[in-house]
Amino acid sequence: MRIGVLGTGTAGQALAGRLSELGHDVRMGTRDVAKSLARPDEAFVAWRGEHPAVELETFAAAAVRAEVVVNAGNGNAALDILAAAAPLDGKIVLDVANALDASSGFPPAMSVKDTDSLGEQIQRAHPGARVVKALNTVAAHVMVHPDLVAGADHTVFVSGNDGEAKAVVAGLLEQFGHTDVVDLGDITTARGAEMYLPLWLRLMQSLGTATFNIKVVR
Amino acid sequence: MRIGVLGTGTAGQALAGRLSELGHDVRMGTRDVAKSLARPDEAFVAWRGEHPAVELETFAAAAVRAEVVVNAGNGNAALDILAAAAPLDGKIVLDVANALDASSGFPPAMSVKDTDSLGEQIQRAHPGARVVKALNTVAAHVMVHPDLVAGADHTVFVSGNDGEAKAVVAGLLEQFGHTDVVDLGDITTARGAEMYLPLWLRLMQSLGTATFNIKVVR
Repeated sequence: MRIGVLGTGTAGQALAGRLSELGHDVRMGTRDVAKSLARPDEAFVAWRGEHPAVELETFAAAAVRAEVVVNAGNGNAALDILAAAAPLDGKIVLDVANALDASSGFPPAMSVKDTDSLGEQIQRAHPGARVVKALNTVAAHVMVHPDLVAGADHTVFVSGNDGEAKAVVAGLLEQFGHTDVVDLGDITTARGAEMYLPLWLRLMQSLGTATFNIKVVR
Repeated sequence: MRIGVLGTGTAGQALAGRLSELGHDVRMGTRDVAKSLARPDEAFVAWRGEHPAVELETFAAAAVRAEVVVNAGNGNAALDILAAAAPLDGKIVLDVANALDASSGFPPAMSVKDTDSLGEQIQRAHPGARVVKALNTVAAHVMVHPDLVAGADHTVFVSGNDGEAKAVVAGLLEQFGHTDVVDLGDITTARGAEMYLPLWLRLMQSLGTATFNIKVVR
């Protein structure tokens, strides 16, 4: 598939890298290509060296040919990033972000919650897009290598209004190695997946690692 | 142990009944004993018939001799209920409630969230009490019979400022049959356990049952 991954941070690198390794045609989007290339960030330079097939382009250029656009930047910038990547009509928008406000220290407050969610905000801003919330409940390395935790015997979620789009995303998650993808329902169910974050953060502290996940046992 | 269970609904019945069956000295607290006895509620009448050892008393009378006071009523009434049961100095207060506002339909909004929690509100209102948040992440029958789900191979949480109180509560949970009790940290971590509720509610809808739980896989 032709996939545009928006965001050059930990989640963007993990997703763009793994999708490219799996044989997809992947472009990575950033706000300012020259600035990103000039960034004194050894990890990003090393990542680019390891993934020469992934072109670094503007948000708009990374999205324009894509069938799937992945929102993998800072959650608080998500609406700006996707506005720069528009129009997204007909495209699947896989939103993996969390919008946390760390300005008051740990634990961060949530920028959107309870009666709304980032997934819904994105869907409202781009009514022609097919938004699917997924993977925001695990760390970047667990998103793309679920076998790092207990042989992948754990659960991830999809939320969205378009059943076909959710099936495409579930297929990508299964290519990553996920074994249990639970369909929570329409895009309003992203509230549930996003509000799990405070528990995830406390579990990370208590367990002393981000290499974990939850399994829905039934 | 001497245990006062405040609340006569589903959670109160499940907890008081199971604690009594396990040999504890259990009293059940209600606002108005005569009114509760006159309630045309066949399930409650049947429950009382099955648990003659559990005396029904006022909140204050159920709490006064108790070493552990269980807040098992409606979460939105929790502060009123516990005020009626005060003083709680030195007592362990096991808070299993969720404060949800269903006035706008499904899904309910959360009455307290993000930068505060019901557990913290109770601790602030009763600074001499030793508040432990636990069991709010599962349905009442799963609280006390975890073996109903996958042989109890799943996780529950404790949050609280007092390590000894958390150990006592963890011991009770293990008597119920819980096999994995994760200590999230101080009472502020109740925010995490409480904000999991929106995901729990959506999972209940998606799975079509409340007989499930999550396992923290690490």
